[in-house]
Amino acid sequence: MSIQLAPLDRFEPRHNASAADLATMLEVVGAETLEDLIEQTVPESIRLPRPLALDPPMAESEVLAHLRKIASKNKAFKSYIGMGYSDTITPPVILRNIMENPGWYTQYTPYQAEIAQGRLEALLNFQTMVADLTGLPISNASLLDEATACAEAVSMAHGQQPKRHTVFVDAHCHPQNIAVIQTRARPLGFKVEVGDWQTFTFHDDVFGAVLQYPDTTGQVHDYHSFCEKAKSTKATVIVAADLLGLTLLTPPGEWGADIVIGNTQRFGVPMGYGGPHAAFMAASEAFTRKMPGRIIGVSKDANGKMALRMALQTREQHIRRDKATSNICTAQVLLAVMAGMYAVYHGPTGLRKIATRIHDLTKILAEGLSDKGFNVLTTDFFDTIQVEMTHHDADLAVSRGLAKHLNVRIFPNGNLGISLDETTAAADVDALLEVFLHTNFQRTSALYAQDLESGYKGNMRRTSTYLTHPVFNLYQTEHEMLRYIHRLQSRDLSLTTSMIPLGSCTMKLNATTQMIPVTWSAFGNLHPFAPEDQVVGYLAIFEQLSHWLTEITGFDGVSLQPNSGAQGEYAGLLTIRAWHQANGEDHRTVCLIPSSAHGTNPASAVMAGMKVVVVNCDDHGNIDVADLRAKAEAHAPNLAALMVTYPSTHGVFEEAIHEICEIIHQNGGQVYMDGANMNAQVGLTSPAAIGADVCHLNLHKTFAIPHGGGGPGMGPICVAKHLTPHIPGHPVVSLGLTQGPVSAAPYGSASVLLISWAYIALMGAEGLTNATKYAILNANYMAKRLEEHFPILYRGTNGRSAHEFMIDLRPFKKETGIDDQDVAKRLMDYGFHAPTMSFPVAGTIMIEPTESETKAELDRYCDALIAIRQEMEEVKNGLYPADNNVLKHAPHTAEVLFGEWERPYSREKAAFPSAATRNHKFWPHVGRVDNAYGDRNLICACPPIEEYV
Amino acid sequence: MSIQLAPLDRFEPRHNASAADLATMLEVVGAETLEDLIEQTVPESIRLPRPLALDPPMAESEVLAHLRKIASKNKAFKSYIGMGYSDTITPPVILRNIMENPGWYTQYTPYQAEIAQGRLEALLNFQTMVADLTGLPISNASLLDEATACAEAVSMAHGQQPKRHTVFVDAHCHPQNIAVIQTRARPLGFKVEVGDWQTFTFHDDVFGAVLQYPDTTGQVHDYHSFCEKAKSTKATVIVAADLLGLTLLTPPGEWGADIVIGNTQRFGVPMGYGGPHAAFMAASEAFTRKMPGRIIGVSKDANGKMALRMALQTREQHIRRDKATSNICTAQVLLAVMAGMYAVYHGPTGLRKIATRIHDLTKILAEGLSDKGFNVLTTDFFDTIQVEMTHHDADLAVSRGLAKHLNVRIFPNGNLGISLDETTAAADVDALLEVFLHTNFQRTSALYAQDLESGYKGNMRRTSTYLTHPVFNLYQTEHEMLRYIHRLQSRDLSLTTSMIPLGSCTMKLNATTQMIPVTWSAFGNLHPFAPEDQVVGYLAIFEQLSHWLTEITGFDGVSLQPNSGAQGEYAGLLTIRAWHQANGEDHRTVCLIPSSAHGTNPASAVMAGMKVVVVNCDDHGNIDVADLRAKAEAHAPNLAALMVTYPSTHGVFEEAIHEICEIIHQNGGQVYMDGANMNAQVGLTSPAAIGADVCHLNLHKTFAIPHGGGGPGMGPICVAKHLTPHIPGHPVVSLGLTQGPVSAAPYGSASVLLISWAYIALMGAEGLTNATKYAILNANYMAKRLEEHFPILYRGTNGRSAHEFMIDLRPFKKETGIDDQDVAKRLMDYGFHAPTMSFPVAGTIMIEPTESETKAELDRYCDALIAIRQEMEEVKNGLYPADNNVLKHAPHTAEVLFGEWERPYSREKAAFPSAATRNHKFWPHVGRVDNAYGDRNLICACPPIEEYV
Repeated sequence: MSIQLAPLDRFEPRHNASAADLATMLEVVGAETLEDLIEQTVPESIRLPRPLALDPPMAESEVLAHLRKIASKNKAFKSYIGMGYSDTITPPVILRNIMENPGWYTQYTPYQAEIAQGRLEALLNFQTMVADLTGLPISNASLLDEATACAEAVSMAHGQQPKRHTVFVDAHCHPQNIAVIQTRARPLGFKVEVGDWQTFTFHDDVFGAVLQYPDTTGQVHDYHSFCEKAKSTKATVIVAADLLGLTLLTPPGEWGADIVIGNTQRFGVPMGYGGPHAAFMAASEAFTRKMPGRIIGVSKDANGKMALRMALQTREQHIRRDKATSNICTAQVLLAVMAGMYAVYHGPTGLRKIATRIHDLTKILAEGLSDKGFNVLTTDFFDTIQVEMTHHDADLAVSRGLAKHLNVRIFPNGNLGISLDETTAAADVDALLEVFLHTNFQRTSALYAQDLESGYKGNMRRTSTYLTHPVFNLYQTEHEMLRYIHRLQSRDLSLTTSMIPLGSCTMKLNATTQMIPVTWSAFGNLHPFAPEDQVVGYLAIFEQLSHWLTEITGFDGVSLQPNSGAQGEYAGLLTIRAWHQANGEDHRTVCLIPSSAHGTNPASAVMAGMKVVVVNCDDHGNIDVADLRAKAEAHAPNLAALMVTYPSTHGVFEEAIHEICEIIHQNGGQVYMDGANMNAQVGLTSPAAIGADVCHLNLHKTFAIPHGGGGPGMGPICVAKHLTPHIPGHPVVSLGLTQGPVSAAPYGSASVLLISWAYIALMGAEGLTNATKYAILNANYMAKRLEEHFPILYRGTNGRSAHEFMIDLRPFKKETGIDDQDVAKRLMDYGFHAPTMSFPVAGTIMIEPTESETKAELDRYCDALIAIRQEMEEVKNGLYPADNNVLKHAPHTAEVLFGEWERPYSREKAAFPSAATRNHKFWPHVGRVDNAYGDRNLICACPPIEEYV
Repeated sequence: MSIQLAPLDRFEPRHNASAADLATMLEVVGAETLEDLIEQTVPESIRLPRPLALDPPMAESEVLAHLRKIASKNKAFKSYIGMGYSDTITPPVILRNIMENPGWYTQYTPYQAEIAQGRLEALLNFQTMVADLTGLPISNASLLDEATACAEAVSMAHGQQPKRHTVFVDAHCHPQNIAVIQTRARPLGFKVEVGDWQTFTFHDDVFGAVLQYPDTTGQVHDYHSFCEKAKSTKATVIVAADLLGLTLLTPPGEWGADIVIGNTQRFGVPMGYGGPHAAFMAASEAFTRKMPGRIIGVSKDANGKMALRMALQTREQHIRRDKATSNICTAQVLLAVMAGMYAVYHGPTGLRKIATRIHDLTKILAEGLSDKGFNVLTTDFFDTIQVEMTHHDADLAVSRGLAKHLNVRIFPNGNLGISLDETTAAADVDALLEVFLHTNFQRTSALYAQDLESGYKGNMRRTSTYLTHPVFNLYQTEHEMLRYIHRLQSRDLSLTTSMIPLGSCTMKLNATTQMIPVTWSAFGNLHPFAPEDQVVGYLAIFEQLSHWLTEITGFDGVSLQPNSGAQGEYAGLLTIRAWHQANGEDHRTVCLIPSSAHGTNPASAVMAGMKVVVVNCDDHGNIDVADLRAKAEAHAPNLAALMVTYPSTHGVFEEAIHEICEIIHQNGGQVYMDGANMNAQVGLTSPAAIGADVCHLNLHKTFAIPHGGGGPGMGPICVAKHLTPHIPGHPVVSLGLTQGPVSAAPYGSASVLLISWAYIALMGAEGLTNATKYAILNANYMAKRLEEHFPILYRGTNGRSAHEFMIDLRPFKKETGIDDQDVAKRLMDYGFHAPTMSFPVAGTIMIEPTESETKAELDRYCDALIAIRQEMEEVKNGLYPADNNVLKHAPHTAEVLFGEWERPYSREKAAFPSAATRNHKFWPHVGRVDNAYGDRNLICACPPIEEYV
């Protein structure tokens, strides 16, 4: 054999895990070759005519070396731009043990609370922090960014006064906040009145008002009387606040705000050129059951022990569907955990010190500039000042700043804005003073420091305490913090323990090589509004990634802005609406949605101002084409779009998809494809190939961004050529587009785009296509192994599943009373996370193994399910009572097993149901959680410490 | 208050953990102020007259920024230097989840096997890998570096033929290997004959021979007949081998070698400018009980389940003392774990592919150079070739290489050596070919690749299989590997779980900021013999660190070379000997050592060619000054040194220390201070202040290098002015010193020196001094809390302990049969690691809490011990039988607790003895390990997989 020169650290064999067992698995599945299986599964009519044309795959070491080069093209200048993004110091213990730790970043959304108590506690800390600092009682566990949080708050306010249609937005809110509210308002028919809060007069149609605190120029206002006026007209006051500022400033909750939102980025989360970060929302109790996003609540488990879980889940869009006022699904859990931990590590005293130091340095800066003869317009500030400038002087200062590797904000009128942050040193203030050239003035910050008094002395000085709970006061040495983080981590099952076969959530490998660059400072420390020539590396990544995504989807244009899948749906539908509008067909607002769709679909449609018409499905879970045709024709004049998931949420490649798309097009509509199941398409078919016009891609599913315990995600949209002019633009960073933004930052959560870029670079066209094939193989292998034991719902015409399949547990419930919940909880005793529960069909579980699991792991999971099936049989046979058996009492904590024992089964049977558990046991931290109790007795901040014991 | 400008992320408050509870703790201890306590503890006579003069402390973010700058001064050129160090690709999953994971790097040496099964398995993999690849049955679990492994092997060979005194060393061994053997041989009186193996004739005095395979020029020899000749004269053949080469080359074990040693660095461990890496040693069965270092063996636990532990511990120097032939104590566990995991991740096929590719590229290079008209001297090679050159041509090639950012080896005669490695790409080979200028020859590696046949076809082609055990064949996808690593990690108690108060081992915080730079490529990817102008950053660190260490110790000179504490002892004693020699007093070889000394002391003394005379201790554990004086005077003409630990191994600041040192000096000796207890000195007193002449510092104790599960460590020595010319030099890198080297690399395990540098930079003089004070406070606080319950052995004159204290468990053994082992194992049930066992006094435990533990954690530990005391009382009172109680059966695994239960105590009492364990339970993976069984039935490679189940 001649010599092979290619590098050996190829990624595909590390990722496509079942390749090593292909022959054995094909035998079980009953297919000659993998290609045969694919032919039996994916309809010929939609197969791609040629392989994907992507770049050849790079080895792991090559990708890292390449990204080092790319990173060196970014310039991480000091940022004084502010506008809601501040540089920050991520405490190293948090950086290494949370952000860079797969034990935290590969966790799933904490639906299975019993094996998620660690991050639930971390999120409860986050909520407590937000509630304390804002002065409002209720907080959720993160939203996507400050601007969308503004929009969510406006929607929520509207819900209080549904008959009013105007929202007031102060002109001194951050421009991206105003713009995202405007984007949201347009399709919903709200009027956004942007003006001056000091002169605004409330009128009958005003349901709410949005203020910024401190405002975008840095000014701290006393909005007290404004709030009184709002209250008198029953309008809701929404305040976008700087959370760190609230350690010194009177919190909005104390001067009349109803809702406070903002970003927690500066609590130790790198700016990442726009994200991901966790936004927050706090509100008065009136809003408890209307809050978008997830709320963590305190409840108890079956044994009466305190247990946490997501509260009030019945509010969520997947239940409320087109009645939902928000489509929020993904949160920013990993980042919320980090922000909460930042508060835990610094405590109230530490946070106050940090805020005070920033304020003190700002004071020096203001004083210095005044002494130099500049007019500092901001009279009462926290960390930001605005300096009056002529355009000429401003240009000079800016260019002198650039020479010193620092950026300031340039207001449209030429004034400059400067925002300081935790990383600002005295020397930085001196450098800033030097930028503002006048005379030979030489006074340094050290001299000012002696003269000036420390601390915020403005009108809005905070007097109330915060973060008095022990959790914010116990872990302020590194060892204690380290152990607290690891203690919580040990309570959570992540991909570091076992597979998490979440149907439609694609919990695939999040490879280390993909994750490493995200925390490099050359990617982490960039402000989203930094000048373009400082982000050349990022832009190169965006360009190549966009190009690859168009090749994969078959489309022409990409918007990387939507920072979650649901945001992608919303952005995609807005794009369709804008296109109709451009065609003079603004009246096209009917959106057809199959009954099997994910709940975000109808919620997004409503947000895009559409009217949802539900299309029926047949007994096989496929769209009822006749019903579709009938409804499309009935609504033809007003038809805007069809939303369709492909392969279907039932795990089937519907043969009729071409016909379906044709019907829509014939009736003037556009086809929106939900990309949740894209992992079954890549390289085999594509959204364009099935006939769609636009799709979103859940990069955190198909393209390897980790779930982070419930976020970050990214949901870029890809669109056909005719739609490309209509994708989201941005008010601060010019994207050459005219539509409004859907996210705060122009490229959404930019830093995690590196992960998807690296995934595609590592896999190449063949690797990606193989991934799809192995994902399909793995699902069919499991289905085959399980079909003797459980009914499998919905298969394709050749009896094949796509990349996921459903097990029907309803027959067993009838026979034994054992339901999907019991199976899910018992799986925990086996060391496994449950599949998707009761979606899209109640009483079923949906399994998606993904391509990165080995046959050995698939077998372990199958063995557990088969053993559970046997345990169900024991109940059926009367060996154990229907209400007192190993399933109904699952999961079993060690503590319960060591207590009094009068159950009909042995402790051993409960604890060690498999050989695998004897080798490695993952212990649930609490027993089955009582959801109803928690919702009845809602507590969503840290309870007294005694409860923990 | 005026404005404070200093940054807020100061490290000291994160480290000195009990500062927050100072007042409460002082009250318990019974001291007015911390300074009072210190005055009562540290004798006035040895207190430093002034504070340490160190640089002001830097904030955490400042240290990282500063190190970034320092790193940028290093130049990580491509290294083709070879000589036992090769660039390598650390698989990212191993980098992030082991090397950068405190769950692995903060573990202690696995003396407590029941809570160390994870790393014990990883080390067993390492041993299996070494045994398989070398073709020899017995392997240990790592030595410090290849050169010291050579020296250890020579000592071991000498043990087989103690009456012979000559060792042959082939001249084509790596120069540092030869030099370290020579250093070792000199004081022991061996003769080292360096010559040509092909012409060497064995004679009666030759006990062993050392060969390099492939030799340092790259040549692969067939040493078969040489081995036969050796065998016929009963001489031992030692082979220093390239472990990766052994995947292609017939292993030495198959052609007659008795001992094979080498480095595993190229198995995924960064070069780190010299270390740390794990060296290996494999041998035939004849050497089983004579092997230095630690051997992991298979045994069973109290329930008959397979359990691993360190085998044959009775061999260790701490037992054999001056009968030991090696002073090896610290291993290189973390790096051995990494190397073993590298083999697990690549498997036999992957390793063979890597080796083959390197060989293929070398073949292309050799062919290309020959085509260009160069004389490639290496006719049968693996990865290294030597090219004949004139000095002039060589200089030209070298400088052209430097311009291309690559280093080659320059032989003394002007020939060049080129060694390829895993990171070499085809383009690199082309670049190398270009360096060798002749004509316009343009053939590229791609063209050669087509013509040449792949694979090693030389004389020594390996035919035997290796790594057939399942562990090397199951975890080759990233998910499986990730989970394997995390599964093993979960079995080991580390500092991420709880304090590990190991007396004399100082398990303090290993802060993240200190660890982060170690894995930066600008520090990791440097060859130890790289030109000086490429390591400017490192040299700056070494210089500043050395300066700080002289200030801290009060001495003048530093050698950073010794890569363990025991190596430091040895280097210190060699320095003393060299000084005596320079004074014409080579006969001074008597070394006084107190009976309480750590076993490495006498072992090191013997290795330094000294005669050990033991000095008695009095009833308080102090040196018997009268006995010391008598022995010093009796041996005055030949007195070389006293070795003394201070504060003493009994945890006491001996008042007589000045007198002791004076006696030694008066009798012509030098005082060597063992730095194990340096954490009780820093800033308060110093080795110079007590009167010593030389000391070593365990940087992995006092200066924050993590223990890594049993290594890496660093043991630099500091010496008084008169000794500075006599510290170790180096044969390859000029240090301007004349003595031989003690380690393979000039600065030992250079990359971890960054940790100690960062620790000192972060703490500053005051922080370090406070650390000492709080370490003393914490020890005295615990002693006070425990003294009502246990007898405390040995206190200072004011009833104070130093930084550690002993609890005497002997009375309880008499009363109840419960001994220190039982207490240690029961502590595991409480989630704690035992203190030091039976050292320096059998039947006692020694507790050293360190300054980085909070009062809360100290209390948790005290509470556990007090509860155990109560459990002992229950046995004494007859509540439980002496042989059937919660202590004798400890530790309790979950598996045992769920089995049949007929014990007189409840499962709950066994499993959840404290509230803390209910909140967070660390489960021992196996029950009490049967050491005797394992030693009787020695298995030190992976047993068949069934055993695991």
